[in-house]
Amino acid sequence: MNDLLPHIAPLDQPGLAEALQRRIDTKTKPLGALGQLEALMLRLGLILGSETPRLEQPQLLVFAGDHGLTAQGVSAYPSEVSWQMVENFLAGGAAVSVLARQHGLALHVVDAGVAHDFAPRTGLIARKIAPGTADSSLGPAMTRAQCEAALRAGREVMRSLPGNALLLGEMGIGNSSAAALLLARLTGAPLADCVGRGTGLDDAGLARKTAVLERVLALHADVQEPLDVLAAMGGFEIAMMAGAVLEAAAQRRVIVVDGFITGSAVLVASRLAPALLQRCVFSHCSAEPGHQRMLAALGARPLLDLGLRLGEGSGAALAWPLLVSACDLLRDMASFEAAGVSGKA
Amino acid sequence: MNDLLPHIAPLDQPGLAEALQRRIDTKTKPLGALGQLEALMLRLGLILGSETPRLEQPQLLVFAGDHGLTAQGVSAYPSEVSWQMVENFLAGGAAVSVLARQHGLALHVVDAGVAHDFAPRTGLIARKIAPGTADSSLGPAMTRAQCEAALRAGREVMRSLPGNALLLGEMGIGNSSAAALLLARLTGAPLADCVGRGTGLDDAGLARKTAVLERVLALHADVQEPLDVLAAMGGFEIAMMAGAVLEAAAQRRVIVVDGFITGSAVLVASRLAPALLQRCVFSHCSAEPGHQRMLAALGARPLLDLGLRLGEGSGAALAWPLLVSACDLLRDMASFEAAGVSGKA
Repeated sequence: MNDLLPHIAPLDQPGLAEALQRRIDTKTKPLGALGQLEALMLRLGLILGSETPRLEQPQLLVFAGDHGLTAQGVSAYPSEVSWQMVENFLAGGAAVSVLARQHGLALHVVDAGVAHDFAPRTGLIARKIAPGTADSSLGPAMTRAQCEAALRAGREVMRSLPGNALLLGEMGIGNSSAAALLLARLTGAPLADCVGRGTGLDDAGLARKTAVLERVLALHADVQEPLDVLAAMGGFEIAMMAGAVLEAAAQRRVIVVDGFITGSAVLVASRLAPALLQRCVFSHCSAEPGHQRMLAALGARPLLDLGLRLGEGSGAALAWPLLVSACDLLRDMASFEAAGVSGKA
Repeated sequence: MNDLLPHIAPLDQPGLAEALQRRIDTKTKPLGALGQLEALMLRLGLILGSETPRLEQPQLLVFAGDHGLTAQGVSAYPSEVSWQMVENFLAGGAAVSVLARQHGLALHVVDAGVAHDFAPRTGLIARKIAPGTADSSLGPAMTRAQCEAALRAGREVMRSLPGNALLLGEMGIGNSSAAALLLARLTGAPLADCVGRGTGLDDAGLARKTAVLERVLALHADVQEPLDVLAAMGGFEIAMMAGAVLEAAAQRRVIVVDGFITGSAVLVASRLAPALLQRCVFSHCSAEPGHQRMLAALGARPLLDLGLRLGEGSGAALAWPLLVSACDLLRDMASFEAAGVSGKA
């Protein structure tokens, strides 16, 4: 395991939390008046180890993979949409492409295991483990060796990229099923609380999806250890994302989590190295019903609540300017003393 | 009244709403997957009269004024903080200054009635009606003539500025009292549901503020017509903001509302010209308890809910990138057909 998992030290720079809180409290505003943004200012200062943090060269990685479980009819869209959307990301036409351009985020798509042969090109990082996972209703989605290869690839991808912030995104028809399975098994939550309509199942589709996932959980009833759970019921994109998260945390990058699927990768990673949660910022609460339970399990308070259910990293990208604001405010807002503003009467 | 209030026509360009909805629905995403952002895309398209809207030269106006009612001890901070914070805005050290720089928002402070003589300078628009309102616990805060002058000044300020978007901000020690009074009188809500801690009153301060506001409401018990209510219990910055909102709506600008105080100006203006609410985007729900009731009275669904209670336009500035995202997505996201992505199975 030791060559697989990096060491992630707790964030405990002596005096920094106190210095940051003092800095926040002496800014020209009533105490606490920036609400949740003040907690974000503190967190970003702690992650980046500075009273005047600056986010640099943010990397938005969209991990893509296909899922054998889609053969059981768990998604409203056909599997081919995974590779078609990868093409759309690369061509700049997807929501996350537009948002990445708006905010100056470097966008790469990581082919972790899409069932399609992509021509090499700028923006595509080819790390395919296999063309889609096996059907987890019939056996493990991936072998333990594949799962470890995906984790290592995620770490390597992260090491190859500059900057101090990682924004997580994903694409994979069927991956809300994998995420629901990971959530149910790793937290013990009832499956019914973890399953949702994904890209838009109707009532009959949701019932079918739930029944399939019950069977998957039953088949893998004795699988409990995080990496085994990931291999049995996860996906290549989720495993590779977990690796990227572990590496990003070890490098003390800010990790911006998107929605339900990226959250499942963080959930797995946090069971391997709990200290990485200190490095995470949760961008939004999605409309996928299991996401609230997942956020609670992660002790997370998301920034946005816009009823998004798109994935891709769209929520992470939408929340990004709030992180920039937090750093800018921490650096550039005047103190009462410097501005000559009176305190409370 | 007619020279005071502009004509605001309803937004009813034939076929535009349907065309916008069709455009949104054929983008490469599941139907509705961008959640509240899709409603924002529709609204911005309707306001700007285009299927491919573009926000241009956004103007953030911070309306500032002092309040005679502060003599009754309704605020945690002394009145001098109003002018000191104006200096801070102009020097670039306030939260809203930092956020305006981040997002490329043109920031002006409008002196609507601060009890201080400012030296003229870039960024300051001098439209002082008087150095602070009268004490509304003893009589009307302003005369009807002052109130109308403030409205007209707000309209003139708006006409003098370029672009197609107005972001509202304000500064004025005591103005959460004025906003609470306007909310209570114009909606009939119980005062206790409208009053909050403002910049940070303790329990005793909140009780005192509530008692003072009860007296003000009783003194002006027979005042009901919106402009009379505004004159009796409002503030110069609120009245001037209402004028700017009316003019911005008449010019079909996007109006980005900040928190509780700017909301009270929109509330007054909407009682004079209800159609202007179609032009408003509500940026956030603040921690001031009356704000939820105000948003409900305005039929508004805010974008952010971060527990902000700073004012200044900080919430409007923080939400601004979401408006830019909505326009960018509407313009630049590919359709299923253009991107060659399959639809539902």
